Amino acid sequence: MAKIAILGFGTVGSGVLEVCRRNAASIARRAGEPVEVKYILDIRDFSASPDAALFVKDLDVILADPEIRVVVETIGGTRFAYPYVRRCLESGRSVCTSNKEMVATYGAELLALARAHGAAFLFEASVGGGTPIITPMHQCLAANHISRIEGIVNGTTNFMLTKMKRENMEFPEALRIAQQLGYAETKDPGDDVDGRDACRKIAILGSLACGHALYPDNIPTRGIRRITVADIRAAEGLECVVKLIAWYRELPEGGVAAGVEPMLVPDTNQLAGVDDVFNAVLMRGDMLGDVIFYGKGAGKLPTASAVVADVIDALKDGARIHDSLFWQPADKPEGLLQDPDRHTWYLRAAGISAAVLTGLAGDSRLVLDGEQGPACLVRGATTAEMQALCEKIRLLGGEPALVLKRLAD
Amino acid sequence: MAKIAILGFGTVGSGVLEVCRRNAASIARRAGEPVEVKYILDIRDFSASPDAALFVKDLDVILADPEIRVVVETIGGTRFAYPYVRRCLESGRSVCTSNKEMVATYGAELLALARAHGAAFLFEASVGGGTPIITPMHQCLAANHISRIEGIVNGTTNFMLTKMKRENMEFPEALRIAQQLGYAETKDPGDDVDGRDACRKIAILGSLACGHALYPDNIPTRGIRRITVADIRAAEGLECVVKLIAWYRELPEGGVAAGVEPMLVPDTNQLAGVDDVFNAVLMRGDMLGDVIFYGKGAGKLPTASAVVADVIDALKDGARIHDSLFWQPADKPEGLLQDPDRHTWYLRAAGISAAVLTGLAGDSRLVLDGEQGPACLVRGATTAEMQALCEKIRLLGGEPALVLKRLAD
Repeated sequence: MAKIAILGFGTVGSGVLEVCRRNAASIARRAGEPVEVKYILDIRDFSASPDAALFVKDLDVILADPEIRVVVETIGGTRFAYPYVRRCLESGRSVCTSNKEMVATYGAELLALARAHGAAFLFEASVGGGTPIITPMHQCLAANHISRIEGIVNGTTNFMLTKMKRENMEFPEALRIAQQLGYAETKDPGDDVDGRDACRKIAILGSLACGHALYPDNIPTRGIRRITVADIRAAEGLECVVKLIAWYRELPEGGVAAGVEPMLVPDTNQLAGVDDVFNAVLMRGDMLGDVIFYGKGAGKLPTASAVVADVIDALKDGARIHDSLFWQPADKPEGLLQDPDRHTWYLRAAGISAAVLTGLAGDSRLVLDGEQGPACLVRGATTAEMQALCEKIRLLGGEPALVLKRLAD
Repeated sequence: MAKIAILGFGTVGSGVLEVCRRNAASIARRAGEPVEVKYILDIRDFSASPDAALFVKDLDVILADPEIRVVVETIGGTRFAYPYVRRCLESGRSVCTSNKEMVATYGAELLALARAHGAAFLFEASVGGGTPIITPMHQCLAANHISRIEGIVNGTTNFMLTKMKRENMEFPEALRIAQQLGYAETKDPGDDVDGRDACRKIAILGSLACGHALYPDNIPTRGIRRITVADIRAAEGLECVVKLIAWYRELPEGGVAAGVEPMLVPDTNQLAGVDDVFNAVLMRGDMLGDVIFYGKGAGKLPTASAVVADVIDALKDGARIHDSLFWQPADKPEGLLQDPDRHTWYLRAAGISAAVLTGLAGDSRLVLDGEQGPACLVRGATTAEMQALCEKIRLLGGEPALVLKRLAD
């Protein structure tokens, strides 16, 4: 009988308990022994719960119990989660987490700490919810060099963009529905709609691909607040859809670039058909070519089932088998990781005429001329060139309202 | 330094050598030590090869060398591969293979043999080529019960159906091109076009899902020889594409059903957009919902890179970590595993009129009335009912030319 503890009894934490009980028999078969939740740490009062006897308020109770071999961290954030996870790893316990903020920020340090104490630090559920991404990446693609990652990794914004497209709904209305359904936070939906959640996820995948830490602070990140239905219709005219894409790329001249930004995705791209709350991540391996992992990116039981799969893994001598799940700490670069490449861009500006816009934009063509300003397609420009163009628009009294890169085929 | 041997220096075997050399540094980092190919077993003459010194013709040379810890089997077929793999496992060596015929036929026995001798028997490359499917299935989905699998698992037929659809090319022409490109065998393309290759793959995935052996002989299997461009156009009118689908399903009343058959796949289904030589497998987990794994299904380096990932895994104490990669032997059922469910069907018949066809078919509607006979859509019928309908058509002097199930959404 393997005993585990859960830190934080929110959505995912309670899901872990539920998955462990509902699929107890098959989990026991795969882990080689039954798996039982012995403690749940939560500061709230659960004395009326049928599981009241499991709840503790002090991490020391868990750390003092030699029966506990694996700890699940589902508190979220870093304030409590990070010091708690450090203490668990230092005590030799393996930790399985769905906490992308903690992994993106302290991953290198926690992986090294786990290694130093013969424990495993596993976080499959931190990207893609229940969809397997991290394990296939570091294990099945172990004989590959991964040069490119492109993904739809935030289900909330993908749901909103799908609503906007299918139902001609503007951003505020789509956000309201996402909040009603519990997909977006009511108080501050910024983690989703401003791209911070997607940024943490690409920081994790990028770190794993290049072997050293990429920090969320260094990844240029833009969300979907400025997208309008008119932009989505203009994209359709270009045989594209608008998606929030998190990307990572190795640069031919050395180094890497990464970003989170809404993009024009050509209809022929496999990511174009990924709708609603679904996530999909494309990876390019040098031996393998492109692979895509697709599934629901969130949800209580899907995410919890990925955490429990990590628990099974950790129970089976996790520390030894995961040498490939690792990245080195790295100095934080100053400023942002910039994309040096040339792209085709969609640029919408307010307060100037279509003629002036296309005149300024050089090799371009008008694709929208509506209430929210004209928009044109600009070919073969770098990020820096687009920034200079936006500056010119401002000097002429206009306002660059939306700039979208087109994803290469 | 870890030493390995390769049995069979064909496409995949030579790819394994190439991957080991080209990505030597990252493979060493992940395996924890450099990996070197010490022997290659092949009966052909490679004395002019730059690697001539590695070649041996006698398995005993390999088995007598205590340095060899992992053996790669890429001979294919079962005549030599099966006894060789048995001997390797009996000697305590782990075996990594891409040989789907051997795994589908002898998997339960070889897995038990590996377990008995403290070795690993790994076969990620046997399904989906380089695309990770088996590892995420048994490892990341370990906390899930898998009730349904639907996949496009044969790249050759998917390439042909894509050609037929896009270029109005009939089957014989599409086959000729697939043969010219080396996708289909020139002598006997039946493994691909008659569905036997797909059948072996769904036998492997289904065995892993239900935990006991499903034998290819018991899986009803039909290929794509009877599909015409007219059928593909009629499918388009129904907002569907024609795909060769390998499927597995748990039955609510107990037991399982499986099959390989061309199907109508609705355009809204994620599998509908999987074209050319790509493969995709959808799995439904009870906790997770649907996930899809997508990538190139074959090719020298992709497949070899999956074999090498298994080698890395096997070198890291493979026998301990793969308790979840297992199925029990099972008696072969008599006859075929039949699909008991009701479906919507596409039925084309030659030699009878459209009026007679729809008259016989009951709840149906005419969707094609061309040179190759009329076709109608029949709703809510079982496989047995469709067989009875085909019998009636024959009694009236007609010939049922094509029967396609529609994949449920």
